[in-house]
Amino acid sequence: MTADDLPGRATLRVAMIGHGFMGAAHSVGWRQAPAVFDLPADVEMTVVVGRNADAVAEAAAHWGWAESATDWREVVARDDIDIVDIVTPGDSHAEIAIAALEAGKHVLCEKPLANTVAEAEAMADAAGRARGRGQRAVVGFTYRRVPAVTFMRDLIAQGAIGTVQQVRAAYRQDWLVDPQMPLAWRLQKERAGSGALGDIGAHIIDMTQFVTGQSVAAVSGTVDTIVKERPLLGSGSGLAGTAAEGYGEVTVDDVAVFTGRLESGALASFEATRFATGRKNGLTIEVSGDQGALAFELEDLNTLQFYDRTAPGDRQGFTKILVTEGAHPYVSAWWPAGHMLGYEHGFVHQAKDLVEGIIAGTDPHPTFADGLGVQRVLAAVEESSANDSIWVRLDARATR
Amino acid sequence: MTADDLPGRATLRVAMIGHGFMGAAHSVGWRQAPAVFDLPADVEMTVVVGRNADAVAEAAAHWGWAESATDWREVVARDDIDIVDIVTPGDSHAEIAIAALEAGKHVLCEKPLANTVAEAEAMADAAGRARGRGQRAVVGFTYRRVPAVTFMRDLIAQGAIGTVQQVRAAYRQDWLVDPQMPLAWRLQKERAGSGALGDIGAHIIDMTQFVTGQSVAAVSGTVDTIVKERPLLGSGSGLAGTAAEGYGEVTVDDVAVFTGRLESGALASFEATRFATGRKNGLTIEVSGDQGALAFELEDLNTLQFYDRTAPGDRQGFTKILVTEGAHPYVSAWWPAGHMLGYEHGFVHQAKDLVEGIIAGTDPHPTFADGLGVQRVLAAVEESSANDSIWVRLDARATR
Amino acid sequence: MTADDLPGRATLRVAMIGHGFMGAAHSVGWRQAPAVFDLPADVEMTVVVGRNADAVAEAAAHWGWAESATDWREVVARDDIDIVDIVTPGDSHAEIAIAALEAGKHVLCEKPLANTVAEAEAMADAAGRARGRGQRAVVGFTYRRVPAVTFMRDLIAQGAIGTVQQVRAAYRQDWLVDPQMPLAWRLQKERAGSGALGDIGAHIIDMTQFVTGQSVAAVSGTVDTIVKERPLLGSGSGLAGTAAEGYGEVTVDDVAVFTGRLESGALASFEATRFATGRKNGLTIEVSGDQGALAFELEDLNTLQFYDRTAPGDRQGFTKILVTEGAHPYVSAWWPAGHMLGYEHGFVHQAKDLVEGIIAGTDPHPTFADGLGVQRVLAAVEESSANDSIWVRLDARATR
Amino acid sequence: MTADDLPGRATLRVAMIGHGFMGAAHSVGWRQAPAVFDLPADVEMTVVVGRNADAVAEAAAHWGWAESATDWREVVARDDIDIVDIVTPGDSHAEIAIAALEAGKHVLCEKPLANTVAEAEAMADAAGRARGRGQRAVVGFTYRRVPAVTFMRDLIAQGAIGTVQQVRAAYRQDWLVDPQMPLAWRLQKERAGSGALGDIGAHIIDMTQFVTGQSVAAVSGTVDTIVKERPLLGSGSGLAGTAAEGYGEVTVDDVAVFTGRLESGALASFEATRFATGRKNGLTIEVSGDQGALAFELEDLNTLQFYDRTAPGDRQGFTKILVTEGAHPYVSAWWPAGHMLGYEHGFVHQAKDLVEGIIAGTDPHPTFADGLGVQRVLAAVEESSANDSIWVRLDARATR
Repeated sequence: MTADDLPGRATLRVAMIGHGFMGAAHSVGWRQAPAVFDLPADVEMTVVVGRNADAVAEAAAHWGWAESATDWREVVARDDIDIVDIVTPGDSHAEIAIAALEAGKHVLCEKPLANTVAEAEAMADAAGRARGRGQRAVVGFTYRRVPAVTFMRDLIAQGAIGTVQQVRAAYRQDWLVDPQMPLAWRLQKERAGSGALGDIGAHIIDMTQFVTGQSVAAVSGTVDTIVKERPLLGSGSGLAGTAAEGYGEVTVDDVAVFTGRLESGALASFEATRFATGRKNGLTIEVSGDQGALAFELEDLNTLQFYDRTAPGDRQGFTKILVTEGAHPYVSAWWPAGHMLGYEHGFVHQAKDLVEGIIAGTDPHPTFADGLGVQRVLAAVEESSANDSIWVRLDARATR
Repeated sequence: MTADDLPGRATLRVAMIGHGFMGAAHSVGWRQAPAVFDLPADVEMTVVVGRNADAVAEAAAHWGWAESATDWREVVARDDIDIVDIVTPGDSHAEIAIAALEAGKHVLCEKPLANTVAEAEAMADAAGRARGRGQRAVVGFTYRRVPAVTFMRDLIAQGAIGTVQQVRAAYRQDWLVDPQMPLAWRLQKERAGSGALGDIGAHIIDMTQFVTGQSVAAVSGTVDTIVKERPLLGSGSGLAGTAAEGYGEVTVDDVAVFTGRLESGALASFEATRFATGRKNGLTIEVSGDQGALAFELEDLNTLQFYDRTAPGDRQGFTKILVTEGAHPYVSAWWPAGHMLGYEHGFVHQAKDLVEGIIAGTDPHPTFADGLGVQRVLAAVEESSANDSIWVRLDARATR
Repeated sequence: MTADDLPGRATLRVAMIGHGFMGAAHSVGWRQAPAVFDLPADVEMTVVVGRNADAVAEAAAHWGWAESATDWREVVARDDIDIVDIVTPGDSHAEIAIAALEAGKHVLCEKPLANTVAEAEAMADAAGRARGRGQRAVVGFTYRRVPAVTFMRDLIAQGAIGTVQQVRAAYRQDWLVDPQMPLAWRLQKERAGSGALGDIGAHIIDMTQFVTGQSVAAVSGTVDTIVKERPLLGSGSGLAGTAAEGYGEVTVDDVAVFTGRLESGALASFEATRFATGRKNGLTIEVSGDQGALAFELEDLNTLQFYDRTAPGDRQGFTKILVTEGAHPYVSAWWPAGHMLGYEHGFVHQAKDLVEGIIAGTDPHPTFADGLGVQRVLAAVEESSANDSIWVRLDARATR
Repeated sequence: MTADDLPGRATLRVAMIGHGFMGAAHSVGWRQAPAVFDLPADVEMTVVVGRNADAVAEAAAHWGWAESATDWREVVARDDIDIVDIVTPGDSHAEIAIAALEAGKHVLCEKPLANTVAEAEAMADAAGRARGRGQRAVVGFTYRRVPAVTFMRDLIAQGAIGTVQQVRAAYRQDWLVDPQMPLAWRLQKERAGSGALGDIGAHIIDMTQFVTGQSVAAVSGTVDTIVKERPLLGSGSGLAGTAAEGYGEVTVDDVAVFTGRLESGALASFEATRFATGRKNGLTIEVSGDQGALAFELEDLNTLQFYDRTAPGDRQGFTKILVTEGAHPYVSAWWPAGHMLGYEHGFVHQAKDLVEGIIAGTDPHPTFADGLGVQRVLAAVEESSANDSIWVRLDARATR
């Protein structure tokens, strides 16, 4: 797709397993990264895999993959594949990722890493072994790669807000408010693992750990299912299916409210819900330190709010930094100051970081161990909720 | 202070006990209400009471009270006093309020109603008996009387957002971030009763119950003290004192994070903190229903955000209603549309509502029973926190 | 109403001429100032004057004036009056103000100073003569006294934004969008002088000159009347009158768009309109300098936006300063940080500043000369509009 | 790049002339459109043209063009080219576009259409002749294709705000505030044609005409150059060049303030400036009608503010519509609700609309005639400014 091979310049060939909504986003990442950034290798969108041959062929043609295939095992075994990119539902992550790692591939796996802690542990183990062979394994928490979020992490690491004393995070959507929204796979525990907690709660746990550089050490919380039965989908999958006769049980949570303790003892409040009427993709996080504070909202993703408590008293306030300057993370490859980035740019940055990590032999974050850490927090929240919301402690060694 | 007495027109004489910061605010209420609203009675700012004769005399002169006094018991017993307005710290509320009620006075008592549930119960009992004699007793949760908050309650009661499914409330300040902030009375359990929980957490509990029309039926939560020792005040009181030699223990919480269940089963998340760097008076509340949502921020107190899920799909969004129209609660007595109200207007509205209630023989909200209900929720949060955050249920009959 | 007279402590007795909407606001100013600030003199709300004896008596009783009267000439001549506060429509300002000044009174006159430049000149002359006798004369541009606006002026004067290079100011309302809004006095040239230009355009001219410390030296602009006929008022006055049979001509502008040159040559854009649908009291001003910028919105009146171009490049942005700290102008007398002020606080500050100026023998801004300067700019805009929008230069000596 | 050719399915081969910053953006458009939208033809990124052979070869490799070339005349003459996309500076637009049209190509030309009205007229003439041969010619005002802007146009056309009564538009940047910013080609009249007026003022003129469906019929205005001399660039071009010895004259404006009359007589205020400190890409437009209003800000490009004056009086306010629903223009091909789009998406939409227009045989807006109309308004503003800001009328027939 890109330049002629330079002498000594590597080409990385990608196989993407799955082609739902996340497949579209990952395809943008692979398509745009080489044309926007100066990558240290060429990238080839080699093959996309799906169960339905016609559907996956159409996806390949539309998104620019050279081939399509229906058997992921065959593809994962191919010698000409360097990177396996997994965008299937969570129940198949472990099997595919472990097979790919054992076949010597670098792996990018959508979040959450798995549906259970046991699966995630097996994946992290496989990644650990593969690491010894020079393979990289990354989890797709792409919101880390929104420039404002990366910059937030950088500012905290530089001490711009001093010692972190509190975190307030939420991810609020509203697509389940309609009781006629059908029973899609995301609402079935056996496919999705969990509901709001695992899907969007995972993002705010990961983001909290990422920007503060601290693990969540203990949690107390409550998960709940507000609408307990929904119309069955006649067939097919996806959110937009037609409701058939009959209703089925929603087996995942649709709201989770929990409190965490970071390693340092700081309290962090979390809320993940699909019932926040009017909030479409309302991820918000605010980190309060003894020298300042930082706040981010995903629906305003090009800005970061920074409060500097060391400024003169009558000039303090939250500064709305437009994170579109060349000095900000990832931005110099894009547009001039004041020109907005959007949702899919995180996927472009993810592809870039993985390619760079592979060539440099370094691990892009978040590793499978990081993904396992998030999984353990999710499991601890469920355990707390099932036990009258008592505090559940995480083994510090295990979560890092 | 105002008009000549009309035939048959009553005059209500007020005694205010205490003269700290809240005394200034209550004085504005009594001074402004008769000049802004058409009250059904005249109001006389008769006497203000304090321990220090000179200080209270100065306060009387400055704020426009006709007299000052030092013995609240004498004042409460005076025949020429109709209303006793209590703005002292919480540890004296019960004694003064009960004495005033037994002396036949109407009572306005600052929030929180008391420092303990037992005190609050005694006060509610006294108020119940006094009610039979035609006396009114009101708790000073003045934020209910911000026009946008009253309007929020009205819209929910009218069904504008349908059935309430979730609440998200927080009250975040930052005045304790500075570790050199001295150990004022608000940080001592024996004077203040509790810390962030009782002082500002009480507001969001009350506001949630007020706007939804539902009680909090159970809670699970955590309270914490981030900075555990602070400089002693050399003498006197107040936040601005000089730090003397030595440090003392902070005996109240400075952050509280808790989850509640409303009567209907809806989840409500609460956070009260004095460590939210950069947030000065950051009370926020959002109520999500199956037909819409409403959101309010105290730092933007003239606006209310309304999401109408019944609007055409491509035109939905949060509408920023400027609550300054004549049709909005309390507003027609003030200024034209677009002219802002501020903090002290709630105190003017409180004085108005109490005067109208007294003349009409009806109870202005929130009653002492409402105040007791809040107190019980506060106690339940502390109980939960002391017991590994397990859920603590409130007796439904008791809380209303 | 206030303290017992201290030995040597003056009492200033106020007569207010007029009792419309602005009379209510000025009454708050006189009532609140002595109770909020530590004034160097006592204030007595002595008498309010109106044409209708019953109406003005009712206003006096309601607002707390000791007496009412119907003949302003008699009142202005009274020995026991120290301050004459003029809140009548603009066509009577000159006559009353000059009479009051010649009778030895201090004068506070609502804006705009007059309906014509000739009247304003006569008033400024009278004020100049009175100044020699120790009298003060102030124009009621109260928005100068919103803490955020005063602070904006201070920051510019301190060099916080460097050299001013551009100004963008607007005042947008929408109360004339309804074509059935009747033909009130504010829409008649003989009473109101001008329309949007004189009523609200005057504010943004004054504010620009105030915060930059520079005069407008030349203007080019256009005034227009969008709805040219409106229902006649049956009788009485005020905006809320009933439309009678028949329509009358609107003889003032309802929109004005103009460009100014400040003394330094910097361009300033202005827009004043009553047809900005949805904007209720939308005064906005932004001043851009070579080191930073400041922006203010009246509908968000407790905040000031400050951009500091000297901050590190990746941390620049508009800082939302909550102008509610004790260090901010006027604020320490009010509430703690984060507690909002509203519209009428400007009138309290105005009363305070006038009382302090009288006792100290110094001129509170804006003087009648400042008011005359605004009047000349208004006239120049009308002249430009009548001459195909050519630039009209103001005599620099005359405008200051 | 995309699918195998279907029987009867056309392939459109694109040649892009120029490869500066706009070339990067156009390349994204051509690369992404076929993979995101279901286009009625295949698109081939055939060749990119530049003066420097090495530089353009590198651009081709990086951005995914199959070939590079140095002679635009040869490329325009090639039989295998269907679309010529012009992203050079304005002084070469006319020559290239006319040659391409005469060679039978469809043309996409960056804005502004040309540097002079005469050039723009020749281009519009050529486009008119080509139109008879089935060729399309479009000007690159891509901000029309931000979903919120297209939706704004749709809402106005549907009558959602009634009759347009006022427009307020501005485009404010700050990259010239630094006096050491060197004398790039955009600051030289012979290359750029004009400065802030032609570069960013053109956008707000076009957007006003687009969303209201009305032409600007007359203008009065002022253009100015705030910093008149700047460091010379040592060599090369681009904004980031090194300042060499010596200074040169800035020969274009850096601020333009003007007022327009729309066909209907409504007033529109415009401001274009590169000296609005802190504003990076601050395009704002507000259209006020007798039934409502709409407001858009480019720095918040996924939202549209809608005020509905027909809503119940106490519920009116600006509704912040997140223009990310499937029902909104262009959105259904992208992400779920609440997922943000950015700057380059407009270029993808532009490529899509042009391909669809070519296949359907219909003219995508804005045509060269529309571009000429904008050019005439720009010229009229300059004429007004040169003549003491008198009103300059545009020939209504000519501007449409």
